[in-house]
Amino acid sequence: MEKKEANIEWRSVCPISSALDVLGDKWSLLIIRDLMIHGPRTYSQFLESPERISTNILAARLELLSCLSLIERSNRVAPSRNNAYRLTESGQALRPVLEGLGDWAGTYLAEFNADIVKLT
Amino acid sequence: MEKKEANIEWRSVCPISSALDVLGDKWSLLIIRDLMIHGPRTYSQFLESPERISTNILAARLELLSCLSLIERSNRVAPSRNNAYRLTESGQALRPVLEGLGDWAGTYLAEFNADIVKLT
Repeated sequence: MEKKEANIEWRSVCPISSALDVLGDKWSLLIIRDLMIHGPRTYSQFLESPERISTNILAARLELLSCLSLIERSNRVAPSRNNAYRLTESGQALRPVLEGLGDWAGTYLAEFNADIVKLT
Repeated sequence: MEKKEANIEWRSVCPISSALDVLGDKWSLLIIRDLMIHGPRTYSQFLESPERISTNILAARLELLSCLSLIERSNRVAPSRNNAYRLTESGQALRPVLEGLGDWAGTYLAEFNADIVKLT
C-alpha cells in the first residue's frame, strides 16, 4: 500500500510549534483521546462522540493522523468501513499531553464551564 | 476595569475537550510559550516570534487568554502599548503540557520536519 505524504507547512524549528502545526486544532487530539479511552474505533464510532465531529473534518483528520503515523488501521489489508483505527507508539506517546490538558482544565476552567467533569 | 466575558461554546463536559475549546488552535499555546520562555512580553514583541503571527490573530488571542485569566497585564492601570502581558497561575500551569508537546515532537516529528530542534 502506498503511503501518502503529509503536506505540512512547518512554521519554525521549534518543537512546540511543530507539534501545533500537526495537532493545533479542536479535533485531532479528541480523536486521539477516543482511541486512548476506548481502544480501536471505526469511522462511525468516532461520529458518536459527544462533541459531534462532522464527517468531512473526521475524514481529513484521520488521513492526516495516518500520514504522520499517529494512528493506523487495525487490519492493514481489509478495506472495509468496519476496519478500525488504533494508536501507534507515536499516538500513545501523547498520553501525558492529554492528561496534562485534562488536569489543567479540571482545575482552571471549572469556573468558566460549570459542567466540566474532573478526571479522577 | 470591567472584565469582559469569554464567550466559549463548550462542546461537552470532557475536560480535554474543554481545554481544546480554549487552546485548540495553532497560536494560543505559542503565546503561552513565548511568555514562559521570555517572561513578560509586549504586543510588538509577540510579532517578532519566528512563526510570524498576524496582528489580528494576536489581538484576538490576547483578548481570549485575558478573559480566561491565563494572562494579564503586568501593570493593571497603565493603558500604554508598552504595557507587557505576563502569565497568571493558570497560564503557568500549562508548562507540563508545553513540555509534553515539545518532547513528543522532538521524538516523533523529527522524521517529518528535518529542521526540528530538540529541547534539551
